[in-house]
Amino acid sequence: MTMPARERSSDPVILVYEPRPHQARAYADRLRSAGLTRIRVASDEREAAEHLPEAEVLFGWRVPVRLLSSAGRLTWIQSMGAGVDDLCAARHLIPPGVVVTRVVGPFGVPIAEYVFAFLLHHFKGVERMRRAQRDGRWDPFVPGTLRGRRLGVAGLGAIGQAVVRLGRAFHMPVRGLSRSGERADIVDEHFGPDDWEDFAAGLDVLVLTLPLTDETRHIVGDRVLSRLRPGAAVVNVGRGALIREADLIHALESGHLGAAILDVFETEPLPTGHPFWRMSGVYVTPHLSGPSEVDDVTAVFLRNLRAWCDGRPLEGVVDLERQY
Amino acid sequence: MTMPARERSSDPVILVYEPRPHQARAYADRLRSAGLTRIRVASDEREAAEHLPEAEVLFGWRVPVRLLSSAGRLTWIQSMGAGVDDLCAARHLIPPGVVVTRVVGPFGVPIAEYVFAFLLHHFKGVERMRRAQRDGRWDPFVPGTLRGRRLGVAGLGAIGQAVVRLGRAFHMPVRGLSRSGERADIVDEHFGPDDWEDFAAGLDVLVLTLPLTDETRHIVGDRVLSRLRPGAAVVNVGRGALIREADLIHALESGHLGAAILDVFETEPLPTGHPFWRMSGVYVTPHLSGPSEVDDVTAVFLRNLRAWCDGRPLEGVVDLERQY
Repeated sequence: MTMPARERSSDPVILVYEPRPHQARAYADRLRSAGLTRIRVASDEREAAEHLPEAEVLFGWRVPVRLLSSAGRLTWIQSMGAGVDDLCAARHLIPPGVVVTRVVGPFGVPIAEYVFAFLLHHFKGVERMRRAQRDGRWDPFVPGTLRGRRLGVAGLGAIGQAVVRLGRAFHMPVRGLSRSGERADIVDEHFGPDDWEDFAAGLDVLVLTLPLTDETRHIVGDRVLSRLRPGAAVVNVGRGALIREADLIHALESGHLGAAILDVFETEPLPTGHPFWRMSGVYVTPHLSGPSEVDDVTAVFLRNLRAWCDGRPLEGVVDLERQY
Repeated sequence: MTMPARERSSDPVILVYEPRPHQARAYADRLRSAGLTRIRVASDEREAAEHLPEAEVLFGWRVPVRLLSSAGRLTWIQSMGAGVDDLCAARHLIPPGVVVTRVVGPFGVPIAEYVFAFLLHHFKGVERMRRAQRDGRWDPFVPGTLRGRRLGVAGLGAIGQAVVRLGRAFHMPVRGLSRSGERADIVDEHFGPDDWEDFAAGLDVLVLTLPLTDETRHIVGDRVLSRLRPGAAVVNVGRGALIREADLIHALESGHLGAAILDVFETEPLPTGHPFWRMSGVYVTPHLSGPSEVDDVTAVFLRNLRAWCDGRPLEGVVDLERQY
């Protein structure tokens, strides 16, 4: 579906789209340093509307998808993130023949570090230790351990694999759930998308690294949460809408769940006054677990750009129908 | 030096010593459940003085060493902890022929979990995330990572080995320092006790898991601290007196060090008003990183007791002259 290689310039018109202007400029600077000269930059709909008609390549995050139908010369969209649910949801607006790619590699390690930072924080009682220090109290107690707690990782892509690897280093038995079953060998027990209840049964920790698709939207609700071990922790580093929020709140309020470690939400920023901000056992962070390090993401883009110019296959191509 | 096996009862008089009476009772209960009937229990000097003269075996923690000369029937002291500096310092009071053993196995995993709980807490900025949540602020930033930071582990016993193993899982290059050089193969670079300055040069994280001996007392002072990378973190899970406190305070106040994660102190409990309680970048915890889980420690003791009865060698025998 892509244009033949002979028609491609090695210095195409590239539109960099990032809602934060300083980040957009940082990406554009990196591309100029790499010798590219036809860079356009946009951080809002007005700027995007101005540049989209001439853009051959779109390199962006949280792109205003409703404008994409105006992008008549576009052949390739490189997302700056790992999740592309917004683009997939608007796939009918993406001109036919446009390839969409996502960033696959560099998020695994920082996201897995985030997951274990908060699991250790919660299960070892770091908050209690910090409070005692603030109060100047010598308050010895026996901290919990991660060792032996049963970890379930839903999604075994690059991020899920990094979480599994650390889980093993912490001596946790590990289950995995994924659609393809491709990495079933890295976990002790593997489950498919029809086995959510068996997968969840008896887990102490459930980590969600799944893409958001029609199939996975609100997949984690009462049915799954009630199967977890009492006191279990749910960690969401995928997308907010994987979880049915009302069910999660219920499982926390009833005391069945011990913790929810949430970096993503159905609405971001998390609205003022949302119960998550103040609920005991809920850890709210502002979608920062897999930071888009400008250098890492630019490196992925430049590697793909060389392949695009040469007509070779790109890394991280998204199947818009499968939605990831 | 030990008594020949034929003179040993399989139900010797065992004195359980633990300064916290409920802990002392918990240990005694476990031993009675194991079928032992001649258990004595003490939590202070008066009680210890009463029972020591008839004790054949002493199973204890923070034993009042100055009373040991009265223990005429004693043949074996099993420490409930990994560190035995108090017993070694009082070795002239321990009747000749008494074997001293320490607990070697079960502290590695919980202590390594503690170390990484706080390293992640510090380097990923968890405190900033928690504060933002308390204030209801959506405050995205790029968290730091552990990946690539240079880790140095001083002491490569069971605890040091567990720290090295997690360091590798977090993609940290790892240096080790130890006297014997026995586990030099588990680290990227190994240093001996005469190479402290080379060992410390350029480390981002220095973890102390050493025993306290005449050689290691105050080994970490200006000379070592000044070699660490600016912003480095020092973690002490060994003994407080490994570090020269005034030098550590200076390195923190000058801004050279970024953090000190301290579970042990020269005086415990850490005195009220000590600067560590309130210094920025200092994490104070009350000597809880390697909790004496009653069941784990009792299992070590009972295994050794069987060996003692049979006249076989014990696990974790301490060389009182070498001091660990």
